[in-house]
Amino acid sequence: MKLQKLMGIAFGLCLSGTLYASAQTQLTDYVDPRIGSEGLGRVFIGPSCPYGMVKPSPDCTPSPNSGWLPMPERVDGFSQVHVSGTGGGPKYGNILVTPFCNGMDQTQHLDYRAYENIRLGYYDTRFKQSGIRTEITTTERASFYRFTYPADSLKSLAIDAGFFLGESPVPDAREAQQFVGSEIEILSDHEVSGYTRIRGGWNNGRAYTVYFYAETDKPFVQSRTWKGSDITDERSQFDSYEKTGALLRFAEGDSVVQLKIGISFLSSQRAKHNARTYIPHWSFEKVHNDLLVQWEKLFKAIEIAPDTPETQKRMFYTALYHTMIMPVDRTGENPLWNDPEPYYDDYYAIWDTYRTSTPLITLIDPQRETDIVRSLITIYKRDGYMPDARSGNANGRTQGGSNAEIVIADAFVKGLKGIDYELALKAMLQDATVPPGGNQEAEGRGGLVPYLELGYIPYGIPRAGNRTVEYAYCDYAIALVAKGLGKEDLYRHYLKQSENWKNLWRSDYEHEGAKGFIMPRDKEGNWLDQIPFGSSKVQKPTYTYTPVTFEGPWYTPWWDMFFYEASSWEYSLSIPHDVPGLIAQCGGKEKFEERLDIFFDKGFYNVNNEPSFLTPCLYHWIGKPWRSDDRIREIITTHFNDSPMGLPGNDDSGAMSSWLAFHMTGLYPNAGQDYYLIHAPMLKETTFHLEDGKDFTIRAERLSDENRYIQSATLNGKDYPYSALRHKDLVAGGELVLKMGNKPGKWGTELGL
Amino acid sequence: MKLQKLMGIAFGLCLSGTLYASAQTQLTDYVDPRIGSEGLGRVFIGPSCPYGMVKPSPDCTPSPNSGWLPMPERVDGFSQVHVSGTGGGPKYGNILVTPFCNGMDQTQHLDYRAYENIRLGYYDTRFKQSGIRTEITTTERASFYRFTYPADSLKSLAIDAGFFLGESPVPDAREAQQFVGSEIEILSDHEVSGYTRIRGGWNNGRAYTVYFYAETDKPFVQSRTWKGSDITDERSQFDSYEKTGALLRFAEGDSVVQLKIGISFLSSQRAKHNARTYIPHWSFEKVHNDLLVQWEKLFKAIEIAPDTPETQKRMFYTALYHTMIMPVDRTGENPLWNDPEPYYDDYYAIWDTYRTSTPLITLIDPQRETDIVRSLITIYKRDGYMPDARSGNANGRTQGGSNAEIVIADAFVKGLKGIDYELALKAMLQDATVPPGGNQEAEGRGGLVPYLELGYIPYGIPRAGNRTVEYAYCDYAIALVAKGLGKEDLYRHYLKQSENWKNLWRSDYEHEGAKGFIMPRDKEGNWLDQIPFGSSKVQKPTYTYTPVTFEGPWYTPWWDMFFYEASSWEYSLSIPHDVPGLIAQCGGKEKFEERLDIFFDKGFYNVNNEPSFLTPCLYHWIGKPWRSDDRIREIITTHFNDSPMGLPGNDDSGAMSSWLAFHMTGLYPNAGQDYYLIHAPMLKETTFHLEDGKDFTIRAERLSDENRYIQSATLNGKDYPYSALRHKDLVAGGELVLKMGNKPGKWGTELGL
Repeated sequence: MKLQKLMGIAFGLCLSGTLYASAQTQLTDYVDPRIGSEGLGRVFIGPSCPYGMVKPSPDCTPSPNSGWLPMPERVDGFSQVHVSGTGGGPKYGNILVTPFCNGMDQTQHLDYRAYENIRLGYYDTRFKQSGIRTEITTTERASFYRFTYPADSLKSLAIDAGFFLGESPVPDAREAQQFVGSEIEILSDHEVSGYTRIRGGWNNGRAYTVYFYAETDKPFVQSRTWKGSDITDERSQFDSYEKTGALLRFAEGDSVVQLKIGISFLSSQRAKHNARTYIPHWSFEKVHNDLLVQWEKLFKAIEIAPDTPETQKRMFYTALYHTMIMPVDRTGENPLWNDPEPYYDDYYAIWDTYRTSTPLITLIDPQRETDIVRSLITIYKRDGYMPDARSGNANGRTQGGSNAEIVIADAFVKGLKGIDYELALKAMLQDATVPPGGNQEAEGRGGLVPYLELGYIPYGIPRAGNRTVEYAYCDYAIALVAKGLGKEDLYRHYLKQSENWKNLWRSDYEHEGAKGFIMPRDKEGNWLDQIPFGSSKVQKPTYTYTPVTFEGPWYTPWWDMFFYEASSWEYSLSIPHDVPGLIAQCGGKEKFEERLDIFFDKGFYNVNNEPSFLTPCLYHWIGKPWRSDDRIREIITTHFNDSPMGLPGNDDSGAMSSWLAFHMTGLYPNAGQDYYLIHAPMLKETTFHLEDGKDFTIRAERLSDENRYIQSATLNGKDYPYSALRHKDLVAGGELVLKMGNKPGKWGTELGL
Repeated sequence: MKLQKLMGIAFGLCLSGTLYASAQTQLTDYVDPRIGSEGLGRVFIGPSCPYGMVKPSPDCTPSPNSGWLPMPERVDGFSQVHVSGTGGGPKYGNILVTPFCNGMDQTQHLDYRAYENIRLGYYDTRFKQSGIRTEITTTERASFYRFTYPADSLKSLAIDAGFFLGESPVPDAREAQQFVGSEIEILSDHEVSGYTRIRGGWNNGRAYTVYFYAETDKPFVQSRTWKGSDITDERSQFDSYEKTGALLRFAEGDSVVQLKIGISFLSSQRAKHNARTYIPHWSFEKVHNDLLVQWEKLFKAIEIAPDTPETQKRMFYTALYHTMIMPVDRTGENPLWNDPEPYYDDYYAIWDTYRTSTPLITLIDPQRETDIVRSLITIYKRDGYMPDARSGNANGRTQGGSNAEIVIADAFVKGLKGIDYELALKAMLQDATVPPGGNQEAEGRGGLVPYLELGYIPYGIPRAGNRTVEYAYCDYAIALVAKGLGKEDLYRHYLKQSENWKNLWRSDYEHEGAKGFIMPRDKEGNWLDQIPFGSSKVQKPTYTYTPVTFEGPWYTPWWDMFFYEASSWEYSLSIPHDVPGLIAQCGGKEKFEERLDIFFDKGFYNVNNEPSFLTPCLYHWIGKPWRSDDRIREIITTHFNDSPMGLPGNDDSGAMSSWLAFHMTGLYPNAGQDYYLIHAPMLKETTFHLEDGKDFTIRAERLSDENRYIQSATLNGKDYPYSALRHKDLVAGGELVLKMGNKPGKWGTELGL
């Protein structure tokens, strides 16, 4: 690995030398798309613009979620649409291009990589067998390739409109993408267009169509097309529900061939428009440079001290980068309706991203977050419900709460302008009052009927436990917005309803030294120690349910258990809107502290998923923010780093990365609410350059590995004894100075909210 | 009108002379597409193949549902996709072509008709202003035009990819189609392609895309394109959510220009394939003749006596024709999934068609009905629910029951082969057990939760009355299939549940001499005489509900009232699965007869809608089929004829027409059940040529206007005293001879079921 890294850096320096007017190091240099690409992280490693619709990247066999796998896996080629950091079944992987030498009589041209250079906005590899070098960069809606062929070989290129990630040999396999149709047409001696149509995938979405227009800077001297396994000299292959593609050959002297691929979700003519508009030239360097300029501008919104260690810079700016590659901006590319509102897709999933990505984007680029929220509201208006997740223009899958409500509340309490909050409230109430019925996997609140009737979701309904807990928080989000809009009745109603989590709180249940857990309850109100494992006419076998149980009957899909992706230990600490209430339920502050300690020390905490994102900070509520600091520092030190294995769980469109980025600055948001918790930063100094020209700086004086506890703080020169900061105080601009020392101080015994 | 009719006939004779080898009159000659085209009938008047996807026809201003309006309304041009006989907001009207002379600088070329010839598969008109004659015929997936220009004028043609029916100036108007996008491209000097993308319409469906490929037999000497109001010499206009189109000019000598338009729901290349495959020549006559041959074959399935009066022949075969133009066969044109199963769209609506269209298609063409049912099951498998209505590849709107269940039961009890009935039962149970929630307008059983809990749908839920009544019948359909598949528990469960209509039967309620009505009930079980009309904090005004009430609070859309499109008087007689039970509820046979008389004589019967389709036959159940005969004969004589006003209500994809056709033969189905009621035919002799080569003949001996009562009957020579016939006895082949007389006889006092 060392050698490759060195090559990458050497190449990077050389590249940036040609790209920037000044030789000065740019923030973009600190982004390493490899961080979090291996192991569970699953981040996308190819070039992407901020929120970019087009994401070209190599696709490896077997199909992983991001397309890419580390060497020595085989490469199918390079496809144009991907997602980042996702779990479950893959999505996208459309319009595959593969350079090759010989083989105009075959549709596949798999090869192996000799090396890889992966930098922000740039991908470079050489195929081992063919010796062809492929370099990739991109714009928002068109990707750009430079192929360098060995001088003495044939120069060919395959464009495969039938390829996609996660094809399953099992018909209608759950979460597998399914092929619907494709088409290809050779338009001239340097142009090819077509589309691929795919359904299913992780969110079981309806069919989406990816159109493309591909143009080369060298003419084809030969072109063929295929349908299924038939390769012919036809210039086009119409859609008959079969896989189609094109084989192109260039003149022997054309060692370097460049390719633009415009992508569209409307049509191939639109894809052509995108190719021509987004790349009106043939300069690879210019495309790459334009991409870097976009990112640089965004990264500059958060400035960190120049003497910050390189590793931290790499971790921090890469985390910001990961946060801003999804959802994707598809304004003007929505085939479902004609609307001047912004349109974003690949909310994947809000259940993951609402906690930290949403608040981070709001700080870096509030206009962007406004657009993302407006898109959510428009989706409600046109499709009936806001998504909890959405991909390929289809809502789905729901996991826990109807968390777009928290995204709305977060925008509202932070004063984002340009959003129709009355309409947004209607969208929230749609979730909260209209059961999604048979569509509950796609949107809305599954189990809403009993939730409203009983105040909790009884055992037997999928994810009854976490849905109850999460809906209660979503209810709180509604209450906040209702209050802000002057709707007192609604406010009181939802504030009351936000206490519903208590209805599943089994206060006398003890486990491993803690008392009181969110536990399964049937619709008659009985607590269930034994859960049915199946039934026949004769027997009704059961299994024992405890707060660490993370399984269900054999016939239950894992997403239909009592809790989603976490145990009762985790969800019983996930009450972000009423931590004081939770502390009381747990028996007071001392008991709560003990419980947190048990949670972390006995391994009930799970670093690789979102439900416990806030939990390390809960010590703040018992007046001991330094204990939060210790937990956070330990978690980051143990589980995060700047290597390909640097993320401990699925990055989930930047959720994991934004959690890290916030903690590095010393602030942590409680999404949907108007404040940040203050804790010991890892970065010495962080300045938020805010939208209106104001700055807010957090400076940790004397910060070191030893001096890692906050002794005292000043806000704009005045003593600031509280461990939380209102958003309005941040955006007002100013300076938060934290005086650090080597022992826990007396600072922060109150949140001050 | 007379002159036009004569012209039509004269032309028809001439045309058929050139088309058929034999000069013999064909059954297709009896079809007059004008029957039911004016007034409420709203049938499609243009050329259509059986179940044909492409339906070209003139579109008039203002946009009516079928596109066409009688002269002298203005004509926008001729679009390629239409529906037939529908109510509510329009759907389709896509890809408009308009011949014109001058005006290459304008996008609209409205004109008026000088005359019209409308025959099966053929449309002919001449524009008054331009003098251009347009003749149209069609294949299943490509339409064919012949334009004859005045010799001394310019010869031009507009292709408008932005046109559609029912555009509303009100944004997001309910039931209005909404423009999404369009595209156009001049491919060569004789080819144009593009698409239109529209959402909404009657079923509030998601966006559908109609692709086209248009080819002329004469080259364009000039071509222009437009986007919005900009007309340019560009060869293409990509989709930017604006309306686009092309203006084509032919050489001055080209007085006759022919045009093929291939249509596809997948792509314009596929549309090209359709144009070339379905019309691989330039003979207008051949296209028309091929269409006639298809229809002739279908019509021959039901042969009527050669000496049947012309009027009856016209009414009968036109009724068969109307029954078989929808739903439309879109197998291979489904953009949503890739599946070897048949795919039909424009089930519009099953609530209308299940009663008589479904059973009629089963008799004429059982293989077709098998395909239609398989398509329903596939839609369940892929989209989650079977449709109650579906158009533009989207389920919606539901009206009453989840009536695809009755279509399944009808197929099952009639032994249609090649259907996976186990999967079909799952589809039925999806309707019956999984609430559609917020999607209840699109599919499933809205109000299912209280229906299952209370045994009825309480007042306040839209269409509580008819939903309760209709779900009960759907439950009976499930019971039938469950029983046939050997699922006794399920059978008993749904048989019991099919009695739910009784839970809204208010037995002591009297109105106009009848006692016992389906009436509104609240969820506590109270009968409601007063219905809330609205409420404020101070007042709660109400209005009085009676069995003739057909209104709701001012703020209630008409589809959200207690009953859909009918009154309690009608729905209280709509219990097709338990007429004996209904008779008992009504106080016995005598009371029931009185009630039926009141119903018809006091005008509670509504001839123009489906809920009372079966009611004229209810006298059969009290042993007086001759009284049914009188009612039926009176209804037909008064309300049906062979003129443009010949249908008393929306034909609803042939529902009204198939009701007529059945009654003319002397059989009437009770859809979902395995028998036909026998009553006095209007046709002397009807022979069903069945699928396996067997024939079944109904002969009414001595039938005349006076001799219109059945005195006795024989089945295959044996006395047949019963007024109902099992489907199995019909398909076994044979002869039902009815001896007619001028007074009611003793025949048919029992159904014999």
